[in-house]
Amino acid sequence: MNSFRDNLRKITPYVPGEQSKEKDIVKINANENPYPPSPKAVEALKSFNTDTLRFYPNANANILKEALAEYYGVGVKNVFVGNGSDDVLALAFQSFFCGELPIAYPDITYSFYPVWCDLFNIPYKTYPLGEDFRINIEDYKEPNGGVVIPNPNAPTSLGEGEDFIRKLLEYNRDSVVIIDEAYVDFGVYSSVKLTEEYDNLLVTGTFSKSRSLAGMRIGFAIGSAELIGVLEAVKNSYNSYTVDSLSIDMGIASIKDDEYFKETINKVIATRERVTNELRSLGFEVLDSQTNFILATHEGYNMKELFDYLKTKKVFIRYFSLPRIEKYVRVTIGTDDEMDRFLCEVKSFTEGK
Amino acid sequence: MNSFRDNLRKITPYVPGEQSKEKDIVKINANENPYPPSPKAVEALKSFNTDTLRFYPNANANILKEALAEYYGVGVKNVFVGNGSDDVLALAFQSFFCGELPIAYPDITYSFYPVWCDLFNIPYKTYPLGEDFRINIEDYKEPNGGVVIPNPNAPTSLGEGEDFIRKLLEYNRDSVVIIDEAYVDFGVYSSVKLTEEYDNLLVTGTFSKSRSLAGMRIGFAIGSAELIGVLEAVKNSYNSYTVDSLSIDMGIASIKDDEYFKETINKVIATRERVTNELRSLGFEVLDSQTNFILATHEGYNMKELFDYLKTKKVFIRYFSLPRIEKYVRVTIGTDDEMDRFLCEVKSFTEGK
Repeated sequence: MNSFRDNLRKITPYVPGEQSKEKDIVKINANENPYPPSPKAVEALKSFNTDTLRFYPNANANILKEALAEYYGVGVKNVFVGNGSDDVLALAFQSFFCGELPIAYPDITYSFYPVWCDLFNIPYKTYPLGEDFRINIEDYKEPNGGVVIPNPNAPTSLGEGEDFIRKLLEYNRDSVVIIDEAYVDFGVYSSVKLTEEYDNLLVTGTFSKSRSLAGMRIGFAIGSAELIGVLEAVKNSYNSYTVDSLSIDMGIASIKDDEYFKETINKVIATRERVTNELRSLGFEVLDSQTNFILATHEGYNMKELFDYLKTKKVFIRYFSLPRIEKYVRVTIGTDDEMDRFLCEVKSFTEGK
Repeated sequence: MNSFRDNLRKITPYVPGEQSKEKDIVKINANENPYPPSPKAVEALKSFNTDTLRFYPNANANILKEALAEYYGVGVKNVFVGNGSDDVLALAFQSFFCGELPIAYPDITYSFYPVWCDLFNIPYKTYPLGEDFRINIEDYKEPNGGVVIPNPNAPTSLGEGEDFIRKLLEYNRDSVVIIDEAYVDFGVYSSVKLTEEYDNLLVTGTFSKSRSLAGMRIGFAIGSAELIGVLEAVKNSYNSYTVDSLSIDMGIASIKDDEYFKETINKVIATRERVTNELRSLGFEVLDSQTNFILATHEGYNMKELFDYLKTKKVFIRYFSLPRIEKYVRVTIGTDDEMDRFLCEVKSFTEGK
C-alpha cells in the first residue's frame, strides 16, 4: 500500500538546548557573551529606515561582505556570509564534501558535524583526541574526503597555533580543510591569512560569540575565490536572501567598532583567567581555555552532581553525558558578578560534601 | 591525480535578480509591497531590548508560531517558521520528496522549484499550463512523488478555488501536496483550513509580500503535526536558529495588526484593478490577477522592447525570456503614484510606435 509517508525523510530529531525563561538566573550554559552588542550596532538598529523593509535585503549581502573584506584584509570575492555560522558550515558541508572518502574530524568536537553528515549523506570518520584533549595532527595524514577542525576546539576550549594549522594544510593539499573559528577572537591564532596561500582552506566565523549578536544570526566564511564561488552557487540554489536587512547593517556597524570589540574581549579574557585561577585554588582541574568558556573537573566530586546542584541555585552551566567528557562541566564566562555567584555556589557545593 | 576539486559540488550558479541602487526609480520588478510594514512592527523594532541580542533567539521561534497559530486557528504543533518562504520550501522539498517517482508541478511557475530539485536530487516532471495559463487538474492524477502548486500561481497571477484544491488533494492521497501561498492574501482561496482534513497537505506562506517585511526574512508553513514534525527535525539538523530575534518580534507585531494589514491589501487590490482596466483600455491583454502583480501583453508591441524602453525611463518591470511567457511582462503593483508614472511611460511607448 502506497502512502505519502513512504517519501518522508527518516530522521532523528536534533533537539536544541533548552532556554530558561526564569528571572534572576545566571545563564552560563550557551557560550553567549555577557556584554551587550556594540553601541554602534544598536544605533544602526535604532536609526534603521524601516520603510525599506518592504524590499528584499541587499543582494548577496554584499555591503556586509565589503565590511568583512576590509576588516580581514581580503577581497570581497573571498568572503561569504550566512544565517549564523551553522548555516555557513551546513552549506560548506554540502558544497565541499561530495566525495567517497570519509571526512575527518575529532571525536570530541562541535556536535553538529555528525548531524550535517547524516543529513547530507556524507561519510565521516572521527579521530580521538589525546588524553590531554589535544588533536593528534598525525591522524590527519590519512587520506580523507575533507577535514573540519574547530580552532579553538569546543567543548575542550583548547586552541592550536600556526605551525599546527600549516602542518594540517600540508598533509591535506587534496582535501578542503575547514577551520571553524567560532571562538577564535578569545585568544588563539586565526588562519584567515593562510587562505591567501591555500586555495583549499575555508575559515568560518560568527558574530554570535565575540560580537554579542547571537540574536541576529550572522556567520561568515573566508577562503579562495574558487571555494567561495561554489559556496555562493549552492547558497543561491537554496535561498537567495539568508541574512536580513537589519542583520546586515548591525553586522557592518559591529565590524567598524573595533575599540568596543577589543574592550569586550579583554574583559571576558580577564574574567576567564580569574575564574580559572579561583577554581584551581579550590582543587579543580581547568583546561587552559582560549575561548569564552572553560572545561573543568574535580577529582573529589561528581560533576553531574555539581551541575544539578547549581541548577537548583539558578546557576545554569553545561554538562555532557558523553564518553570521556562526562567527568567535566563546561562553564561560559559571564560578567564578574555572575562568575562570583557561580564561584560562591561552587564553594557551597564543595563545603556541603 | 587527486584534488580537492574532485569533491566540490558541481552546480550552475543561480543568479538572483539585480537590485538597482539608483534614486528616483519606480521599482515594480520584484513583487515587493509599495507600503511600509505595520507601524506596530516598526514599534517592536524601535522598542526592542537590544541587550538581549547577545542571546540566541527564542528556541524554535515558538512565540512567533503561537501568534501564527492563533491567527490561523490551528495548533502550535501545526506551524513551522523559517528564514523566508524559500527556506521553508527548500526544507519541505528535502523533508517530503524522498521517493523515486518524480514530483509534479506546472511548467510555468516559481523558478526555484527546479533549482531545489537539482540541489537535492529530486526527480521532477512539469505539466504544461493550458493556453489560458490555467492548471489542468487532470494532469495531477498521474502517480507522482509529491505535488507543488502555487496558489495563486506566479508569474501567471491566476488563482484557483476550493473545488480545485479539494480535487487535487483527492487525486493525491498518497503524496505530500504543497500549496505555496506566497500571494494568497491578495485575493484567492486559502487552503489553510484543509490542513485539518488532509494530513498530507502543507501550506506555505511569507511575510515578504502582503506584510511588507521582505527585508526581515520570515516564512511559515501550516500542516498536520506529522508533516510539521518531520520539517522541524530536518530544520533542527541544519540550523537550530533560522529566524532572528528581531524578525520574531516584528513578525508577531505584524500578525497582531490585522487592521493595517487589510487596509494595505485593499489599497494594492484597488490599484491593481485600476491599472488592469487602464492597460486594457490601451489594448493590452491583462490576466485576471489575484496577486500583487499583473501579467500583461499587447498584440501590437514587442514586450521585450517595452521592458527595455521603461528601463530607460527608470521604470523597472520584469521580463522573462522563457518559452510561452516571452510575449508578456510582469508588473508589480506599486503605489498609485508609481503606477501613474508607469502608465504614462507605457502610453509614451505606444505613442512613439
